[in-house]
Amino acid sequence: MGRAKEDAFLYEKIADELGEMIARGALRPGERLPSVRRMSEERGVSVATVVAAYQLLEHRGAAEPRPKSGHFVRARAGADTPVPTTARRAPAPTRVSIHADADDLIQVMLQARRGQVPLGCAYVATELLPLRKLNAILAQVAREGGGPGGEYADLRGSLQLRRQLARRAVRWGVALEPDELVTTLGATDALNLALASVTRPGDVIALESPTYFAFMRMLEHHGLRAIEIPTDPQTGLDLDALDDALRRAPVRAVLCSPNFQNPLGARMPDEQKERLVKMVARRGVALIEDDVYGDLAHDGSRPRAAKSFDRDGSVLLVGSMSKTLAPGYRVGWLAPGRWDEAVVRKKSAMTLACPTPTEMAVAELLDEGGYDRHLRRLRRAIADQCARYREAIARSFPEGTRVSRPQGGFVLWVELPQGTSGIALQAEALERGIAIAPGPIFSARQRFQSCIRISTGFPFSPRIERAIATLGKIAEELAPKRAA
Amino acid sequence: MGRAKEDAFLYEKIADELGEMIARGALRPGERLPSVRRMSEERGVSVATVVAAYQLLEHRGAAEPRPKSGHFVRARAGADTPVPTTARRAPAPTRVSIHADADDLIQVMLQARRGQVPLGCAYVATELLPLRKLNAILAQVAREGGGPGGEYADLRGSLQLRRQLARRAVRWGVALEPDELVTTLGATDALNLALASVTRPGDVIALESPTYFAFMRMLEHHGLRAIEIPTDPQTGLDLDALDDALRRAPVRAVLCSPNFQNPLGARMPDEQKERLVKMVARRGVALIEDDVYGDLAHDGSRPRAAKSFDRDGSVLLVGSMSKTLAPGYRVGWLAPGRWDEAVVRKKSAMTLACPTPTEMAVAELLDEGGYDRHLRRLRRAIADQCARYREAIARSFPEGTRVSRPQGGFVLWVELPQGTSGIALQAEALERGIAIAPGPIFSARQRFQSCIRISTGFPFSPRIERAIATLGKIAEELAPKRAA
Repeated sequence: MGRAKEDAFLYEKIADELGEMIARGALRPGERLPSVRRMSEERGVSVATVVAAYQLLEHRGAAEPRPKSGHFVRARAGADTPVPTTARRAPAPTRVSIHADADDLIQVMLQARRGQVPLGCAYVATELLPLRKLNAILAQVAREGGGPGGEYADLRGSLQLRRQLARRAVRWGVALEPDELVTTLGATDALNLALASVTRPGDVIALESPTYFAFMRMLEHHGLRAIEIPTDPQTGLDLDALDDALRRAPVRAVLCSPNFQNPLGARMPDEQKERLVKMVARRGVALIEDDVYGDLAHDGSRPRAAKSFDRDGSVLLVGSMSKTLAPGYRVGWLAPGRWDEAVVRKKSAMTLACPTPTEMAVAELLDEGGYDRHLRRLRRAIADQCARYREAIARSFPEGTRVSRPQGGFVLWVELPQGTSGIALQAEALERGIAIAPGPIFSARQRFQSCIRISTGFPFSPRIERAIATLGKIAEELAPKRAA
Repeated sequence: MGRAKEDAFLYEKIADELGEMIARGALRPGERLPSVRRMSEERGVSVATVVAAYQLLEHRGAAEPRPKSGHFVRARAGADTPVPTTARRAPAPTRVSIHADADDLIQVMLQARRGQVPLGCAYVATELLPLRKLNAILAQVAREGGGPGGEYADLRGSLQLRRQLARRAVRWGVALEPDELVTTLGATDALNLALASVTRPGDVIALESPTYFAFMRMLEHHGLRAIEIPTDPQTGLDLDALDDALRRAPVRAVLCSPNFQNPLGARMPDEQKERLVKMVARRGVALIEDDVYGDLAHDGSRPRAAKSFDRDGSVLLVGSMSKTLAPGYRVGWLAPGRWDEAVVRKKSAMTLACPTPTEMAVAELLDEGGYDRHLRRLRRAIADQCARYREAIARSFPEGTRVSRPQGGFVLWVELPQGTSGIALQAEALERGIAIAPGPIFSARQRFQSCIRISTGFPFSPRIERAIATLGKIAEELAPKRAA
């Protein structure tokens, strides 16, 4: 890095120190560097900063990571690892084993401290949610009769809630009976149930690329292999590439989000949804459709779910109220299609039952009908926020930066100038109290090194504007200087 | 069976019919019998009845089960399968693959219909729980400030709840900091987290025998192998047999309930708990301790947890409020010992976060201090119920019946006269609207054929007394007639 020591970033200073220790032989080739966690405790810096420092040493060819055992001093200097470019063809499936560093960075984000500027995790500001109303209903539900909670809920979950969801399903273009639904602890539980019911360890799952980092953790948890399918920022999953992958690899299931995919915000056109469903049905492959953002189209429309084209139960549809109503209520659901029996059995082993009070309250709210009014307000708010965040990024990020143009949801995918490290940007941002999500955690193969995801779930404000300006300045300084 | 057709049991009639079809060649050797589910729908009888009928055909040597593919007509008649007797030595580990029949019987029980006499699933009557108070607190929590649910809970769960649990842990003889606890969705979620963090597919888990049927479903879900350790109805796990098993098999974890084990109600003496913990620690084996019944000693004492002897974090302690406060709130916890980091990461992949309103309400209730007063009442009630149920069983069950004498909890383990089928008893009981749990579901190897578990969670009443008398009559008729 060409800059003088005194204005070096914290992660650079740590990398420089270690580099010198290596140079003068205080750290010998093959020797193990301190674990990221220990280093961050010893230096009193964030885990992200240590990860960035170690990665810089990698780029300089001074250190190398070894799966599950940390970083080691390298024998000889090597070239910079180039930033991968989007392949037109899907790579071969790899067993998902999240790089310890990526896992640390995810953990850092999930455990974001209060006070940080919340551009990391994808959730909307409480003030945009009808929490007061929902909690008032919860209070009323709790006071009525004996009140909830006295017995384990039905294995499938609250019938009252399933009735309301079956009614809403019409808006997704799906005809569902209450008994074709299973309630879950948010989408996370639903996705785990779906994966556990459809797959066996070692199976191959086709994923969007980039994909939601939590999907990869679930695949890792279930011992699955991933095949990453190129995904268009506007139209989503590349179906030709998927078709090609289905021919070449024994894919058991496709896991994707046709509506406002996280992190790209892509919306798959209906005719492509139909093609996707036919494609998997023809091959007996399961389609696990995550529709948690489906209610959040910026233009106010409600795109249909791919499930609406399902004729033989090939699609397992996942939804939740965490993005639109109350993250802390953990109310989600799964329409398991032809895996219904397997899912109900898995639920009895994995969850047994969901809490009744929260499910009853959400059912009541849906029944009272205020939900759609709320959705209209919420859609307008996030559409506006997305636009303002986008403008701010355009104003303050370095030339050559690209930003996604989502049609729904509330995350932005930012591609920094080639060679700019998203991980270093996260590290430096955290030192300044700003949380963001680095690109590599959205890929099982650590791709998207020079990308970041920015959540726009909070109303735009001077504080947010300053934070984005700061991010832009850091990115500017991180960007490799152009050759004269 | 020696009895005349007209007074035959429903399951016998179905078995007889099929037997005749086989005899006259309408069903050929090697031919597959209709699936249990299809048969139960076609005949409009319970799944349990069909399972019992098929089992009777097995006993008569007319049919044989094949793993995962159902029952088939047998080529030649065979002898009765003898009822297994308790082995002193633990058998070799077997991959847990719950027999489809057993799985059906568990499902039947979990989906017990309203109106059934509730002697099947293990939970206490709502009237014995402080639901009104708990729900009043929930209502109050929901009304305060912005109210709960606006954000995802901390990965570890509500700090307020973990503080209260850490305070209570003193009563279990355990010193815990709030940050040494993770909240979970009841004990089920806690046990799955523990298994996922400690084991890999194919690992061997040592279990009590008989053991709680849900444990086996979890082992099956995680692709684990079970080794069943003989267990004493009074003192629990046979530690010599366990020691022997630890020598012979690569056991990764021991999963047991030292306090008031389900289904035996055994209470392991403290010095044995200490020996158990030393035994696993010496070998680096994990001890997953399920303490959900620990607060329910009939004599009012609170036995310490095996975890109280843990010096190196070998013990993962599981607890929940489902048996003592509110099954429908699904509030449980896990003290992961030295697996803490792994458990927190697994939670972020498997559950992400638990609901906040229910955790806050339980924390408030513990803080207000009414919980111990409630526990005193509850202990007296279930001790009394257990005694009355026991007397009723002694009065009306056939000679030779044995009943456990639990020191805590609220389930009774009933050993019927040799050769009496617990599965047939469940089937006939269900036809009369009485739910019980058949013995074989408490073993990975279908042992305990002539046992049943009876839950005493509901206050003794004439209705319960009649139900027990009916069970006794059925058992009497099912018992093989003694040779003159």
